[in-house]
This record gives sequence, C-alpha cells and structure tokens, in this order.
Amino acid sequence: MKATMIHAPGDIRLETRPDPVISEPTDAIVRTVATCVCGSDLWPYRGDNDIPEPNPIGHEYVGIVEEVGSAVSTVSPGDFVVGGFLYSCNDCPTCHAGMHANCPRGGGYDGCQAELIRVPLADGTLVATPGAPDRDLIPSLLTLSDVMCTGWHAAISAGVGGGDSVVVVGDGAVGLCGVIAAKQLGAERIIAMSRHADRQDLAHRFGATDIIAERGDEGVAAVRALTDGIGSDRALECVGSEDARRQAVDSVRPGGMVGLVGLPHGGLEAERLFWRNKGIRGGVAPVRAYLDELLPLVWNREIDPGAVFTDHYPLDRVSDAYAAMDQRRTVKALLWT
Amino acid sequence: MKATMIHAPGDIRLETRPDPVISEPTDAIVRTVATCVCGSDLWPYRGDNDIPEPNPIGHEYVGIVEEVGSAVSTVSPGDFVVGGFLYSCNDCPTCHAGMHANCPRGGGYDGCQAELIRVPLADGTLVATPGAPDRDLIPSLLTLSDVMCTGWHAAISAGVGGGDSVVVVGDGAVGLCGVIAAKQLGAERIIAMSRHADRQDLAHRFGATDIIAERGDEGVAAVRALTDGIGSDRALECVGSEDARRQAVDSVRPGGMVGLVGLPHGGLEAERLFWRNKGIRGGVAPVRAYLDELLPLVWNREIDPGAVFTDHYPLDRVSDAYAAMDQRRTVKALLWT
Repeated sequence: MKATMIHAPGDIRLETRPDPVISEPTDAIVRTVATCVCGSDLWPYRGDNDIPEPNPIGHEYVGIVEEVGSAVSTVSPGDFVVGGFLYSCNDCPTCHAGMHANCPRGGGYDGCQAELIRVPLADGTLVATPGAPDRDLIPSLLTLSDVMCTGWHAAISAGVGGGDSVVVVGDGAVGLCGVIAAKQLGAERIIAMSRHADRQDLAHRFGATDIIAERGDEGVAAVRALTDGIGSDRALECVGSEDARRQAVDSVRPGGMVGLVGLPHGGLEAERLFWRNKGIRGGVAPVRAYLDELLPLVWNREIDPGAVFTDHYPLDRVSDAYAAMDQRRTVKALLWT
Repeated sequence: MKATMIHAPGDIRLETRPDPVISEPTDAIVRTVATCVCGSDLWPYRGDNDIPEPNPIGHEYVGIVEEVGSAVSTVSPGDFVVGGFLYSCNDCPTCHAGMHANCPRGGGYDGCQAELIRVPLADGTLVATPGAPDRDLIPSLLTLSDVMCTGWHAAISAGVGGGDSVVVVGDGAVGLCGVIAAKQLGAERIIAMSRHADRQDLAHRFGATDIIAERGDEGVAAVRALTDGIGSDRALECVGSEDARRQAVDSVRPGGMVGLVGLPHGGLEAERLFWRNKGIRGGVAPVRAYLDELLPLVWNREIDPGAVFTDHYPLDRVSDAYAAMDQRRTVKALLWT
C-alpha cells in the first residue's frame, strides 16, 4: 500500500509499505477513503519534535472496513466507518466515564495518511454510518475523526450551555469547529478571535455573532465591551500557546470557565485563576464519546464542519498538502485516498 | 466597643476602639452576637503575613442590626442577620453572575472579632433570618458567614451532582463543610481524607461514607480502590497547600474536576492536568450567592455545620481561642460577643 512517511523536518514522502494485517481478533483493517493533515502533524514537519527515524504519520481517517478479526461484532466488511484519532475499548471505567482518550487499553495508529490502516479494538473505536455516504458528505464525516470532536470537547469542557457568551481563541480548524459546537450547545453570543478574512467568513458561517481581530489586552477590552464589561461566560482555547491560554483566561468573567484543547506548554498561574474565580478544564478529546451525538448531526446535514477543508488533494500530493498547511495557505488539507 | 487587634505574630489583644458609625447611606451597623477565628486569621498570627502596624482582625459574624443608613431597605434595626466575609452590591453584572466575592464594589470589613461592625452595601450583603434564632442555632448560622459557604463553593465549583464520588482533601472546618455540601448535592460516595479521630467522627456525622488516613501516592491508591480503579468524579481541595492540591488532582479520574477553595500558593502543572483531562475551578466563595439556598437548610435544621465549632469562648478570651486554633486543639473556635 501507499503510506505517508516523515523522514525529517519538511521531508514528507508517499512510500510503499506492507499492507497491515489483522494481528488481534479485535482488529479491523480499514481501507481509507479520505484522510487529512492535522496541525499537530506540523510539529515534526517544522522540527518541533525529534524524528529519530522515518516514521509513518497521520491520525485522521474515514474509510470502508476491509476485514475484521474474529472478535469484532459491531462493524463488518463493507461498512463505511468513522473512527477517532486514538483507539479505545469503550468498555472500561474510564470509557464509561466518557474519557476514551484516556482509555488505559487505547493508543494511536501506525500512520493514517495511508491507503490501509489497522484499527485495534475496532468495536470500541469505529462507528458505521447508516449507509454509504454521498461524496460531498465525506469531508464533514472526516472532521469527526479529530477536529470537530476536539472543538466539541472544548465547548463541553467549558460547560457551554443555553444563553452563554463564548469566546473562541484560535481560528484554525479546531477553533472553527468550536464555533459550531458553541452554536449547537445553545450559546447566544459567540465571539471568534480572528485576523484572517477567510477564517472570519467561515466563523460567521458556522455561527459566530462577533469577530474580534485585536489580541492581548486590546482583545480582552473588546470582549468586555460585548459582555456587560465583565467578560464572557466561557472561552475555548484552541491554539495551545501561552498567549492564547492567557487570552482565553483573561476573556472570561469571574466564575467563567475555559475549555482547553490546545496543548498547554508551560504552567498555569493558579493564583491568577483563583482570585478571579476562573476555572479551566480540558485535554485530549474523547472522540468515541461524542460520535453518537455528532455523527447524526453531520449525517442529517445539520452541521457542515467539512468546510474547514479549504483544500483537497489526492494522497500522492501529500507533500504539497503539508506545505500548504505549513504556509497557512489553507485552513486544513484533505487527502483523498 | 471591644474589638480584637493583632499587634504581632502571636499577639492578639481585645482593646477598646471607637464605635463604628454610618458613613454612607448604604451602611448598616451590626451588633455582633457571635464571631469566630478563621484558618486565614492564623496566617498573620503565625507570622506568614506582615503586620506593619496593629490591625483589627476577623471577618465572620452574625448579629443584630443596630442602625441603618437612609438608603438601606432590606434590613432594619432589630433584625438578626447573616453576612458574608466580604460585602458585595448584589446588583452588578458580576454579582448577577453569582460571583459576589469578585464584586468590583465589594470589599472587606474593619475587623469582625468585635462588638460592633460597619457593614457597607448592607442591602447587597446582609440577609435577615425569618425571626430571632434559638441560641443553639447560632453556631450554624455563623458558619454561613464563611466556612459553610466556602465548602459549598468547593462542591459547586467541582460540579458535584447526584451519584458522584467525591474526595474531600482537608479535614478543617471548610473541608468538613465540604462533606455536608457534597451530601446535600447528592454525592453517593464521599471520601474524607483525615488522620484525626475527632474530625473523622465529624466527617462521618456530616455524611462521609469512607475515611482515608493515608496521603500522597498511598492516599491516591486508597481512593482508586474505592472508585473502580480510576479515581473519584470530583475532589474538593480545602487546604491550600501544594501537597493538598496535588492530592486532589491525583485523586480524580480522567475527566474529573477539582473544586479549589484553598488559596493555591505556587502554580499548576497544566500539562499534567491536560493529558489526564482533569479540570480545576474555584476561588473565593461568593457567600451572598449561596445564602438564599443555605440559610433555609440551617434554619430548618437540615444541616448542622455549627458542629465544626468544637470550642466556644467569650470574646474576652479571644487570645485563648487563637492559641487553641493555632495548636490544633480545636477545629474552629467560636466567640460569643
């Protein structure tokens, strides 16, 4: 099969690798239909992570089940399936608590920007769509593998509910999906912080009521001007930088809550949170926990997160897809396999 | 009037000070019936805070309204009143959001371990009881001034709800009130971390289902043994030390939430929280926000938080009360004025 390997920063190659095989009775083999490039794939691409040896890469996918192990009962060959960027058992106390990304039996894949992938614990990971999807629905289904569920996790972690004001920090694919999530969860005022006209347009289309281009103290002042002078009820931190985290924390009112899905490099100023009665919650999104709710929303075309894929490529142009993402020429790049 | 002054670490004196007077039309003067010593009063007593000059001290009280300013309409002379350890306007966006401790017009008193106190913004701060309370009810009413509402805030901040498992870190008055709060909010399993037999007894009386005497990793292991191996749904951090905060964070399961009311010296390890999908929320308790719910519970004798006052003193023995608190001979010392 063809599979994407990263050899060094900036060096992405589509190569031939052995087809994956069923190695446990709980495995499935999925022939991908589409996969994509994630912001976190850019970390090694940009040299932020070490690459001691050539590595398969990619963790988002949708596809068709090719083969299942003897213990797999919920999906069958021929099913179109969605699966999260981590596999999970969906049958332990941690999964029962809805925290599948922390499943002690779970883990990651051997590269998903590929034609075939082995999905361990298939019953706990994959969800079949009600039928074969129209092709134009596939991008939105693909977002369920990561960014839509991650934006949703930010909103759930922040406790977004009816009537809330919500600031979304980050106008990448996750932040934009956070806008969709906030709207679905009933937020009344959704303030997207964005400086880019194309992303502002997407944010508006997804439900943002206000756009703020300013950052830092000016950005906070702009938020307060929209929120009775005290700040928003919730903020979604969808970047992962210290600046973004501070922007989110400073944007919420006393008693407000920050949903955190950007990996927080560095620490939190606990006293700063404490004296202003602000909370913070989040982490790696438990995709499987959200699929039952979000898959029907996509299937019934109530949400259209696939619009975050502002560029589509065939898999053999994966290197171009990385370059477009790296240079911010696209919000998120889809790869048809 | 007689009022308590702190002159230096360990040097508490009851002195004569001028009676407070109405200085704003929104003020009330309250003749205290009971006041008490707080764990935070021990910070200057133990030399943890500077005392550049002799200072009035104390911030918890119940009493009878003596006089009100011309703009006060909700309480009248003769009313028995409860008020929080900070005054608040109860009429701004921050108060409307339920975060009275962060009210921009609010603040602290000029010492409450005294016979008379001036309460600014009386309408936004004081709540009258339905009538004159029986004397045996006064200790529980007094806890509403701080510790009961602070324990409640820990539980609310942690999102305690029906069926939850809750670990309470700290067996002081606030932690014990946190046990009461967890029970009232429907927690099914309430695990109190305590090494002291008398406090363990109080915790049981207040609703704790389990007691854990171990700390650190052993304490965490003991929590997990009671909670499907993954940790509790919630933890209440009612101490304020780094060890206690870590105990609380480590005690909750992935997706769990820590309610924080102990002042967090030092920072939080954000990545540690993130990778385990744990959240943290809390701060200074918004007493006024909780009085409408908690005062009836005390008045109708559904909860008995006054039991945390394991010693009662007359005000002129305030120095003995501090010594008993400092030497941990009492959970919390009440002062009858």
